[in-house]
Amino acid sequence: MKNEQLNKGTIFPLGNKVEKNFIGDAYLQMVFTDEQPLNAGIGSVTFAPGARNNWHSHKVGQVLLITGGEGWYQEEGKPAQSLKAGGVVNIPANVKHWHGATKDSWFAHLAMTPGETDWLEPVDDEAYGNL
Amino acid sequence: MKNEQLNKGTIFPLGNKVEKNFIGDAYLQMVFTDEQPLNAGIGSVTFAPGARNNWHSHKVGQVLLITGGEGWYQEEGKPAQSLKAGGVVNIPANVKHWHGATKDSWFAHLAMTPGETDWLEPVDDEAYGNL
Repeated sequence: MKNEQLNKGTIFPLGNKVEKNFIGDAYLQMVFTDEQPLNAGIGSVTFAPGARNNWHSHKVGQVLLITGGEGWYQEEGKPAQSLKAGGVVNIPANVKHWHGATKDSWFAHLAMTPGETDWLEPVDDEAYGNL
Repeated sequence: MKNEQLNKGTIFPLGNKVEKNFIGDAYLQMVFTDEQPLNAGIGSVTFAPGARNNWHSHKVGQVLLITGGEGWYQEEGKPAQSLKAGGVVNIPANVKHWHGATKDSWFAHLAMTPGETDWLEPVDDEAYGNL
């Protein structure tokens, strides 16, 4: 899927391709980076079909607001949760998880992140393929 | 414009009609109200054409992320700024302002609000009509 096609479905700009800690084509546009009044930066992440981030955790947590497409959120040891526009995920601090697009759909979310992120190993292709 | 029509254009649910401090038909759906990990609640506000909130200010500030339609943001003593999907506004603490739809378009934004709001007088019909 070309960038131009992805961009048509999204509310926020695609931004730049993410080069690390993701499988497949994903794009990040930071939409809020000021120090005040929020305790978190806000990024819009857009995933091409099949793209997902590696397993990771957040030292303080993260909130996802789904702005388009269809995707997955999975915490270690739990079933993957289906996500679509209007969905909200409150990711607790230090919980290992990943998120990304379904195999057949692009996916976009805002990510509000008040602290640092610890990146881990990629999501297994076979496990992802079985979703 | 009927609720059903408004709802088709929005990412987040319409929620409930706002009964105070607004002119025209506006709807609020809180999408994030947890105590952690953010220092702010997040609401999705959807305005019918011509709807806007009264002048007000925020004790800590507020961030708006525009998710659809076309609207205005105006600080006291400054020109109104045009807003559309993908726009971001960082509203400083204690700055008197209003926001809302244009006369001809619905408008929807996420509002992240870390503190209390002080509500003031309605936006003058003639001033709004001249935008």
